[in-house]
Amino acid sequence: MISITVYSEEIQLQTKGEEDIIDITEKVENIVHTSKIMNGIACLFVVGSTGALTTIEYEPGLKKDLPRALERIAPKNIKYDHHETWHDDNGHSHIRASLIGPSITIPIQEGRLVHGKWQQVVFIELDTHPRKRTIIVQLVGE
Amino acid sequence: MISITVYSEEIQLQTKGEEDIIDITEKVENIVHTSKIMNGIACLFVVGSTGALTTIEYEPGLKKDLPRALERIAPKNIKYDHHETWHDDNGHSHIRASLIGPSITIPIQEGRLVHGKWQQVVFIELDTHPRKRTIIVQLVGE
Amino acid sequence: MISITVYSEEIQLQTKGEEDIIDITEKVENIVHTSKIMNGIACLFVVGSTGALTTIEYEPGLKKDLPRALERIAPKNIKYDHHETWHDDNGHSHIRASLIGPSITIPIQEGRLVHGKWQQVVFIELDTHPRKRTIIVQLVGE
Repeated sequence: MISITVYSEEIQLQTKGEEDIIDITEKVENIVHTSKIMNGIACLFVVGSTGALTTIEYEPGLKKDLPRALERIAPKNIKYDHHETWHDDNGHSHIRASLIGPSITIPIQEGRLVHGKWQQVVFIELDTHPRKRTIIVQLVGE
Repeated sequence: MISITVYSEEIQLQTKGEEDIIDITEKVENIVHTSKIMNGIACLFVVGSTGALTTIEYEPGLKKDLPRALERIAPKNIKYDHHETWHDDNGHSHIRASLIGPSITIPIQEGRLVHGKWQQVVFIELDTHPRKRTIIVQLVGE
Repeated sequence: MISITVYSEEIQLQTKGEEDIIDITEKVENIVHTSKIMNGIACLFVVGSTGALTTIEYEPGLKKDLPRALERIAPKNIKYDHHETWHDDNGHSHIRASLIGPSITIPIQEGRLVHGKWQQVVFIELDTHPRKRTIIVQLVGE
């Protein structure tokens, strides 16, 4: 009889500030290993509205290229009504985060997180200053 | 012995038209409460190809800022081949919806939907007219 | 007593090259059918960092319109630092893939994959040449 369980853990990060892209693949793999789940899914979710999760080939070039694309979508130095609500400076951070999205779901097979050799799971800091971040890792499987 | 279950419910919305952004956090939280699931995941999915789901800080400024970013990605008043297929006017709506995405997966912990204090779950109407919308909320957990 | 299971299968694709958009809805529906899961979720994930998954109305017009929007976000003929890392030509492919995202989660209800009549599940080839692709389909449900 196969038994399905839910396993929860949190990843805590200290980011260096705007456009810091952090490879969290190994941290998630360690959580999968600890959980002893062999087959299932890993749901990752960032708490907060100015950070995002995705996958990318984690190399120095793309860490510069991705912020340039985000600047085309939501430039820093234009008017944001968000700034008038809070006298804040991170309207572009919120827009970028909502477009990339706060969650990602990744399969677990044979006790391992599925991903390509040149495909890492990353957290993207989009806020305008260094922050402490919490990513919930919720595993469901057998 | 922990017992895992699947719980399904639908959220029905009447949108006000293009770029209406609707906070559905409380509706999802009520479904989590009704399900009695304490620990697991909530998978939300919008049926249809001109609406999208994400999280955002739900305040009036960002509700104006987000459509401006979408206009940079997929402007309304340019040529879309989609319009030639159907004599339609919503090519930009489809493109925006596909880029943001139709699904979001959110952890459930201690019987509560996980999210930041200033992070709400939202449906974004991207079509060019008011519509009735169905969002499937599928919970898996214990 | 309801029994929850995990069911895994892979979809193998041969893409035609850059901006090939492939409707995989029927392949996923067949996997759901084979699994005999009646109620749950389907987590789809592309292995690799230059492909993406989303939903779209699968018709010839939007297949031309979507690449045009991606060209606004990450144009082909600009400088990418990624090219200096690997002497590669697909910096824009990586950026586009990270923004759309590698995963999508879709509900299963009454033994069927939930989606709109004009909403298909698609894989988008973003790399600069034809490739063999593997999409993991991980089902969790009862």
